[in-house]
Amino acid sequence: MFADTPSPPYLAVIFYSRRGGQDEGYAETAARMESLVQQQAGYLGMEAVHDEQGNGITISYWRDEESAQAWRAHAEHAIARARGNAEWYDAWSLRVANVERDARFERET
Amino acid sequence: MFADTPSPPYLAVIFYSRRGGQDEGYAETAARMESLVQQQAGYLGMEAVHDEQGNGITISYWRDEESAQAWRAHAEHAIARARGNAEWYDAWSLRVANVERDARFERET
Repeated sequence: MFADTPSPPYLAVIFYSRRGGQDEGYAETAARMESLVQQQAGYLGMEAVHDEQGNGITISYWRDEESAQAWRAHAEHAIARARGNAEWYDAWSLRVANVERDARFERET
Repeated sequence: MFADTPSPPYLAVIFYSRRGGQDEGYAETAARMESLVQQQAGYLGMEAVHDEQGNGITISYWRDEESAQAWRAHAEHAIARARGNAEWYDAWSLRVANVERDARFERET
């Protein structure tokens, strides 16, 4: 469930989105991006939750600014983003943040 | 939909959680916390998505470390967190991060 991130500091890219009615190609592209991102140098993991109304939050974690920028510059990812704006997303916000500390809880079973 | 945050820098508190079967009191406490947090000095907004399987991501935004810490120290919030660990959550992770830049997209209608 949890992204297995190392000790801070590292980078978090917070993507909050709302999808509209047009879904053609979305699932395939999302799966392809999820596969591609895992091959990126400096990629540390991802956490995502999507609801039934089309809202989603996806947080990807990166070793540093350089690795996050390299993913942004990836040609296939850039094409997917452009298609997202043209077809899939009604709105999104993106925030890039430096993680300074973290904590974790798991119930003992 | 979007938290109406000011220009960076500001703080993001990223809370990723998985709830178990025990839900008694959860909705009331969540509503109470949502109301309380809005009265906190330095609170800038919140974005949250929850799915049908009990997974949730809630990101609260804060002016600075002091305001985030004051909310953490709020007595009623502390009690709610303790109850969360004892009853509602199977697991969670929390990350505190400095937002450095942001971007936003909204489809023109």
